[in-house]
Amino acid sequence: MNYPNGIKKNIVKQPVNYKNRGMVLEDDINLTNEYYIKINKAFIYKKPTPIKIVKTDFPSRDKAVIKEAYFTIPSTTDYNGLYDGKYIDFEAKEVKSHTAFSLSNIHIHQINHLKNIYENKGIAFLIVRFTSLYETYLLMAKDLFDFLDNNERKSIPLDYFREKGYLLQQGYMPRIDYLKIVDKVLEVSNNGKKE
Amino acid sequence: MNYPNGIKKNIVKQPVNYKNRGMVLEDDINLTNEYYIKINKAFIYKKPTPIKIVKTDFPSRDKAVIKEAYFTIPSTTDYNGLYDGKYIDFEAKEVKSHTAFSLSNIHIHQINHLKNIYENKGIAFLIVRFTSLYETYLLMAKDLFDFLDNNERKSIPLDYFREKGYLLQQGYMPRIDYLKIVDKVLEVSNNGKKE
Repeated sequence: MNYPNGIKKNIVKQPVNYKNRGMVLEDDINLTNEYYIKINKAFIYKKPTPIKIVKTDFPSRDKAVIKEAYFTIPSTTDYNGLYDGKYIDFEAKEVKSHTAFSLSNIHIHQINHLKNIYENKGIAFLIVRFTSLYETYLLMAKDLFDFLDNNERKSIPLDYFREKGYLLQQGYMPRIDYLKIVDKVLEVSNNGKKE
Repeated sequence: MNYPNGIKKNIVKQPVNYKNRGMVLEDDINLTNEYYIKINKAFIYKKPTPIKIVKTDFPSRDKAVIKEAYFTIPSTTDYNGLYDGKYIDFEAKEVKSHTAFSLSNIHIHQINHLKNIYENKGIAFLIVRFTSLYETYLLMAKDLFDFLDNNERKSIPLDYFREKGYLLQQGYMPRIDYLKIVDKVLEVSNNGKKE
């Protein structure tokens, strides 16, 4: 952005610091999605945070200011979009635990939504980052529901992610190439069906 | 929903009033989408309105109140989802004009987004209601871009919708069965390709 009188605003760039790998998962995914859009590979977006607006002021014709609003419970996952004609849908979560992913991290509406997508030929999954280990896994909806159907537990152990999920490597561009995993899974599932 | 002591809450049903056909398009589409979800046909949702939150208060642990926020320009369309394994994406607009749909009704980001979806094997379209005529049209992205590529005009005439678009009939359940049109278009396009 150009400012008046030729002043350029300094954009504070974070130095590359490999010790500080604490970049939030959401940023990694958003940057990855921007990259996919740029190379015309996929069109996957984060949905805006759902809120309920209670009060709005209109100080002038163009400028509406929201003065009172509340966060509401999302009915769907945060991310969805198009990849190669197919519908992609996922939720992403960071957890501090280094042993398990508590299901309290995800709303029941979101679980139900993932189930609908999975059962209706969409590509649905979870991305979970264990921040204390800096390990990020993609777990396909099928494996999520296999777990839920066979366990009474309120959390999914890390070992389950290690066994059934796919470790997402951290890269530069894209930051986490989750569609590479999706390709792999689809390939396996197509071969499995002998199509 | 059952209330305590056997009290049933009266649900106020709108009487069917054919004079008052002023129901907003957004409500018609949302009810239609709820119906599609209920019958397990499609999972299409309206995205939340994008806002930029500037100030939030936390009067208690659970209750965050947004005290200052602004509406931001959407980068995508309002509606997207899954239908029969396929990715569906559309924008819906009401216009008062009874002669044309001004392109100022739709953000350039949204046009570009529809183009990306259309070019990448998603099913993309516009739904436009001419409120003064109470006529609602579905216009496939292909026909939108054919028009834009061949015209300098800043608006699409109603006649173009009548010629290239599909009139959406008002029903009870679903209110506007736009997937019926999508089926028809896909069938024609598959036959056209002799697949």
